[in-house]
Amino acid sequence: MRDVFIIGAGMTQFGKWLDRSMKSLVAEALDEALPDAGITKEEPQIAFVGNAAAGLVTGQECVRAQVVLREYGIGGIPMVNVENACASSSTAAHLAWQAVGGGFHDCALVVGMEKLYSTDKAKTFAAFGAAVDVEFLESIKQMLKAAEKTAGADAAASGAKRSMFMDFYAMAAREHMKKYGTTKEQFAAVAAKNSYHGSLNPKAQYREARTVEEVLASPMVAEPLTRLMCAPIGDGAAALIVASGAFIDRLRARGTPVDPVRIAASVLRTGRDRTTDEPDPVTEAARLAFAQAGIGPKDVHLVEVHDASAPAEIMIMEELGLCAPGEAGKLVEQGHTRLGGPCPINVSGGLIARGHPVGATGAAQLYELTQQLRGRCGERQVKGARVGLAENAGGAVRADPAAIAIHILTAV
Amino acid sequence: MRDVFIIGAGMTQFGKWLDRSMKSLVAEALDEALPDAGITKEEPQIAFVGNAAAGLVTGQECVRAQVVLREYGIGGIPMVNVENACASSSTAAHLAWQAVGGGFHDCALVVGMEKLYSTDKAKTFAAFGAAVDVEFLESIKQMLKAAEKTAGADAAASGAKRSMFMDFYAMAAREHMKKYGTTKEQFAAVAAKNSYHGSLNPKAQYREARTVEEVLASPMVAEPLTRLMCAPIGDGAAALIVASGAFIDRLRARGTPVDPVRIAASVLRTGRDRTTDEPDPVTEAARLAFAQAGIGPKDVHLVEVHDASAPAEIMIMEELGLCAPGEAGKLVEQGHTRLGGPCPINVSGGLIARGHPVGATGAAQLYELTQQLRGRCGERQVKGARVGLAENAGGAVRADPAAIAIHILTAV
Repeated sequence: MRDVFIIGAGMTQFGKWLDRSMKSLVAEALDEALPDAGITKEEPQIAFVGNAAAGLVTGQECVRAQVVLREYGIGGIPMVNVENACASSSTAAHLAWQAVGGGFHDCALVVGMEKLYSTDKAKTFAAFGAAVDVEFLESIKQMLKAAEKTAGADAAASGAKRSMFMDFYAMAAREHMKKYGTTKEQFAAVAAKNSYHGSLNPKAQYREARTVEEVLASPMVAEPLTRLMCAPIGDGAAALIVASGAFIDRLRARGTPVDPVRIAASVLRTGRDRTTDEPDPVTEAARLAFAQAGIGPKDVHLVEVHDASAPAEIMIMEELGLCAPGEAGKLVEQGHTRLGGPCPINVSGGLIARGHPVGATGAAQLYELTQQLRGRCGERQVKGARVGLAENAGGAVRADPAAIAIHILTAV
Repeated sequence: MRDVFIIGAGMTQFGKWLDRSMKSLVAEALDEALPDAGITKEEPQIAFVGNAAAGLVTGQECVRAQVVLREYGIGGIPMVNVENACASSSTAAHLAWQAVGGGFHDCALVVGMEKLYSTDKAKTFAAFGAAVDVEFLESIKQMLKAAEKTAGADAAASGAKRSMFMDFYAMAAREHMKKYGTTKEQFAAVAAKNSYHGSLNPKAQYREARTVEEVLASPMVAEPLTRLMCAPIGDGAAALIVASGAFIDRLRARGTPVDPVRIAASVLRTGRDRTTDEPDPVTEAARLAFAQAGIGPKDVHLVEVHDASAPAEIMIMEELGLCAPGEAGKLVEQGHTRLGGPCPINVSGGLIARGHPVGATGAAQLYELTQQLRGRCGERQVKGARVGLAENAGGAVRADPAAIAIHILTAV
């Protein structure tokens, strides 16, 4: 296979956009990405479009890509609707990498898009329930309730209306606390850091920097998760232009400036039945990604991870091998992962502050890495960033993520 | 890119399976496809799973592939949920062809699956409505109603509860009749032929051979379409094992017999805004597919087309270049496309008789071509078949198909 590059990126601010359609959000992302790549809307040769919940939230199934892209004036080319829950658009990026890397196309369009806000909130919650095996929805809910009860008296305090995924995260967080002595304050430190990062990002859904104390004092969602430790619901779109070296050469030959970053690794995995000795799927995906890029965790200058909840960021740090198991909490408290620290994590604000319109999140992570490696991030720029990693996870089947996508991007 | 082969194929009988889950249907298809390829469930390295309507019919969104494949005992590998309306699983096959042809994987699994029957019929109809731009659903319906009114008195007779797509087909059929003098009897001849083919196929949903008279006498759905000219609603699954030559060599080295067919062309396109002079998207996709395979329409020994309605088969014959515009109706009446004729079309029974569980249809077409090119089709075997073409279309945006997939398979 040949080298593959991202040559253009665009995204909307993430937020609550009840008055805007998915078409309008995608148009805004494309209006940034296409000129950024120096190409017209006639030039992408294939489109991969990630979306998770439109079927259940807006009723638009089957041809989501075609509906939004035809409206924008893109047609004729192959269009693929890709769905992998919260990892939908990183899966789309993986397929674009294959289509270009395999020599089938020279320029591919990746779109991630989601509208989660609905005037009918039941639809939004139904969408989350569809990211697990719906045949077992009731037994999963009962298992989570039982686990919460076992967790003790504090759990009784929790009871906010929430996505079932926050119960999964709460259960995993309690286990991490028990096993490693991780503290609520450390989880709060993740959320505070990401909110600070979000305050520096004009595309972030939440732009207010919060203190550890504020995070801890916010309403309990599911012990030990407070509201400010959880990613919000959101709407938004992100787009990437993925291209071959030959395509870049042609652009330059016609006088178009190109500022590419290289996709050094693209790995997609799913969970599986395994013995307790085997690595978890994120660790396995990271091992494959580092091998593909020919580097190790210490070579990475910035990381975007799937902090759907603050404890997840701590667990993912360990699963990715950025630190030893049980060490992540302390590193976060010490500022290791804050902008200016040795390994900044989620300088975009992460899912917690930049926001998490699920189908758009993976592409938004790659947007952040692309702009960081190009040195275009202003106040939140990671100085000297040359290597970035994005970890995006989606859905759950039998307690493991249904999809894990890891990308490593490098400056050219 | 390197050569890509189908080395295993499986499918359920299509039908009304209210008492069976998608998991059970997919397991049956895999239980045929994996042994057919001579591999275990641990051997596929990536899975592409096409489904159109589960989100709206069963509530299962986001992680449909993972839910059914984990249940079957397949995990770890990358899994991609692919959606392109009625072309979902031919799109999945296109991606498998890219993944293997580009050298990313040596063995890919393609699954098409659908459960359209629901005890709540409204859900089934909602699923069809989601294959167009839902923002314009009401105006599309009004346009179709107006067109039917213009068609005259006979139209008033129609009024059965039906998918809106049958109104699209009826409108196109009336235009074809007006332009070329195509007759209702010719449409009925397509349906009668496909029902005869279906009577020879143990996997077909309908196995009763119907006469032209019976087709014409069946209840009117939308002028000129009678019920027996329309594909039924159905449930079913189909699976393909796609592999590289290197993988086949390894299988043979271990003593496993392999009976491959080659994917000589795989093309995916979508409609686009175009002038009246430009070819329609099926014609354009066919041109690309024939160029990729290095052959022309006359070199094809059998064809599977997307006969969601009988008139569609006639129009697609012309769009594919199998005959000149306006000639297809006569050729059908003359038995040209019947088993034993010079260019048999839909010897599986097509969508009309084999059935049309939408997400499974594309893979089922490729199942038929694979088994025909291997000479395994018994009573419905096309003698000497060495080259087969499958045309699968999905959804509609602005009156053009949202997705068109064309595959050409050749015997090895």
